[in-house]
Amino acid sequence: MSSAWLLPEHVADVLPAQARRIEEMRRRLLDLAYRYGCELVMPPLVEHLESLLSGAGRGQELRTFKLVDQLSGRTLGLRADTTPQVARIDAHLLNRQGVTRLCYCGPVVHTRPSGPLASREPLQFGVEVYGHAGLEADLEVLELALDALSVLSVPEPFLDLGDARCLDALLDHAAASPAQRGAVLQALAVREPAHLARASEGLPELVRHGLRTLLDLEGGAEVLSNARSTLPALPGIAAALHDLAWLHEQLLRSHPALRIGIDLAAVAGNAYYTGVCFSVYGAAQHQPLLRGGRYDEVGAAFGRRRPAAGFSLDLKALAEAMPGERQRPAVRAPWGDDAGLREAIRRLRDAGETVVCILPGHEDEGEEYACDRELIRDAAAQRWILRALPSN
Amino acid sequence: MSSAWLLPEHVADVLPAQARRIEEMRRRLLDLAYRYGCELVMPPLVEHLESLLSGAGRGQELRTFKLVDQLSGRTLGLRADTTPQVARIDAHLLNRQGVTRLCYCGPVVHTRPSGPLASREPLQFGVEVYGHAGLEADLEVLELALDALSVLSVPEPFLDLGDARCLDALLDHAAASPAQRGAVLQALAVREPAHLARASEGLPELVRHGLRTLLDLEGGAEVLSNARSTLPALPGIAAALHDLAWLHEQLLRSHPALRIGIDLAAVAGNAYYTGVCFSVYGAAQHQPLLRGGRYDEVGAAFGRRRPAAGFSLDLKALAEAMPGERQRPAVRAPWGDDAGLREAIRRLRDAGETVVCILPGHEDEGEEYACDRELIRDAAAQRWILRALPSN
Repeated sequence: MSSAWLLPEHVADVLPAQARRIEEMRRRLLDLAYRYGCELVMPPLVEHLESLLSGAGRGQELRTFKLVDQLSGRTLGLRADTTPQVARIDAHLLNRQGVTRLCYCGPVVHTRPSGPLASREPLQFGVEVYGHAGLEADLEVLELALDALSVLSVPEPFLDLGDARCLDALLDHAAASPAQRGAVLQALAVREPAHLARASEGLPELVRHGLRTLLDLEGGAEVLSNARSTLPALPGIAAALHDLAWLHEQLLRSHPALRIGIDLAAVAGNAYYTGVCFSVYGAAQHQPLLRGGRYDEVGAAFGRRRPAAGFSLDLKALAEAMPGERQRPAVRAPWGDDAGLREAIRRLRDAGETVVCILPGHEDEGEEYACDRELIRDAAAQRWILRALPSN
Repeated sequence: MSSAWLLPEHVADVLPAQARRIEEMRRRLLDLAYRYGCELVMPPLVEHLESLLSGAGRGQELRTFKLVDQLSGRTLGLRADTTPQVARIDAHLLNRQGVTRLCYCGPVVHTRPSGPLASREPLQFGVEVYGHAGLEADLEVLELALDALSVLSVPEPFLDLGDARCLDALLDHAAASPAQRGAVLQALAVREPAHLARASEGLPELVRHGLRTLLDLEGGAEVLSNARSTLPALPGIAAALHDLAWLHEQLLRSHPALRIGIDLAAVAGNAYYTGVCFSVYGAAQHQPLLRGGRYDEVGAAFGRRRPAAGFSLDLKALAEAMPGERQRPAVRAPWGDDAGLREAIRRLRDAGETVVCILPGHEDEGEEYACDRELIRDAAAQRWILRALPSN
């Protein structure tokens, strides 16, 4: 086997059964987003690197493939995330004053996989709501995210709510340097108290204690009251706890059966969130199926600091995590230039049926399609009729 | 205006109205392909360069962006064409003996635009039928291509039929060198007799005369009989003329109103065709909307020389060439946590309606959606009802 047809590591073809499921999921998600009033945009795969890495793209430098533009000599990037591009479209191209709801669905490419089993080419679907600073936008995004998993029939989702302002309030209070912020974020990401103690050395004791406390603030709704009594009474923390309580109450009203967790250290992976953030997990997955939150600074790099909230998910990973569906049945038809046969095939296809013509000489080949009927000539009635095929 | 948000030349965002049309066209095309029994595949955007450039990818070297894989140090390519990837999937991954019909829809990226107005990121949709050498496969691909333009409501398509074997037979007869073949192809592409005379210098007079004749063999069905009397009686030419006559007759039966041209020099742009090839034009476009044909050698680089025929088109270019559609009407709804309101919104969305919630404080903003109804509280009946909005 020559290496010519081996794909790079963490890169794979999506073969028919899975590709069709992904396409079906894609349609359901886009249709759902339309029904919420989201408008579809398709940003390009490549654009100037500096544009991809500004604002929400700050953290993407190492994940972004670089290219040279032969037309200009400038460095281009292959997008590793779509959010910065959609922020650019909102800020610059649409330039609307009011609320703008946008959605997108397309591939992104990573130089390195985000985990041992991750694809370097996720298929990213996402929604962004710009222009409303109030919690109603956070709620709308959360409802849409939950509906997204619902239209995909994800069983028993688990919603994990957090808020970037708890951590930010502590670090801002300590006037921590960017390097120290990075170290604290990393320690929180691995949830390692010893790590965190080292990373927060030299910060005021109030802040060190607050950071240690964050690690324990994980659980059900009781976390919010615990946090009120154990975290320092900084304004950002009070606002976060108020907002989380409101969202928690609203979501329980609309989704009484939903399992909701609160995790005040959970912001770790998502460096660009500035308020409420969330992840949704499936019943059997350790990785979140979907992530989102508020990131009000995202358009600032493009000259327009608009409130923004949204979420995104990887359709390929989601399809892997979901049980397979049965193939749709098809009709088997002979090949021939009989006008009646061709007309019968056309009518079936116009009605939405899959009709596989058996090309001459291929009558005995195994079939990839699950044909449950065949088109045959009824000699007595002089017309083409469907006959059931025995199932294999 | 800072350059940070300027896109590279020949790269553009697709904004909402156009993006939605492209998505709608994409669905119609994939659904049509399914009904013919085509299975969807999604090859990756990046793979090893040598794999992308083998077989049908030979001509793509200059159009393909190169990347370095940090995981292996090898050179990757960003695909400039999907056909070589689909041939790899047929040859290697599926490895079926019988007829395999595959379809795909995804972006490709070019280092340089193919024309002054072309995008460097076409959205390629295509179909490939593997495993049948007979004309029935060519006919199926042609019928599917015509149906594709029909489901997109392209008015008055014009089909241009050619065959790579006419030119190949002449050049093979002369045992022309690869360089001389390239020069002749270029001269035919610009249809320049003086050019062609220079490019064919040194070839036998029979061949030079044949090449000159090809340039004139363009027109209606009479071209085939003219070709029989003016082209040298080489076996490849006889086979090509026979096949074109059969396809022409079949297509006229199934599409009596279709305008069909024959152009025996038209193979020029498509270096990998090995038999019948075709382009379909719209009423007002100089560039073809769609191109296809037979390329039996395409899987050879992957160890499997299977007969193959197919076509592809660029959805972005096609959407540009088509008249716009009207926006779908939407429903405007107030924001509120009244349970009856939320239930009314949910029911409308479940029924497929777009419901735009006006978030608090945004009541007087211009709307991007064409809302033709609004959801209001009927105080007397104590329920939420739809009321028509005056059209602007």
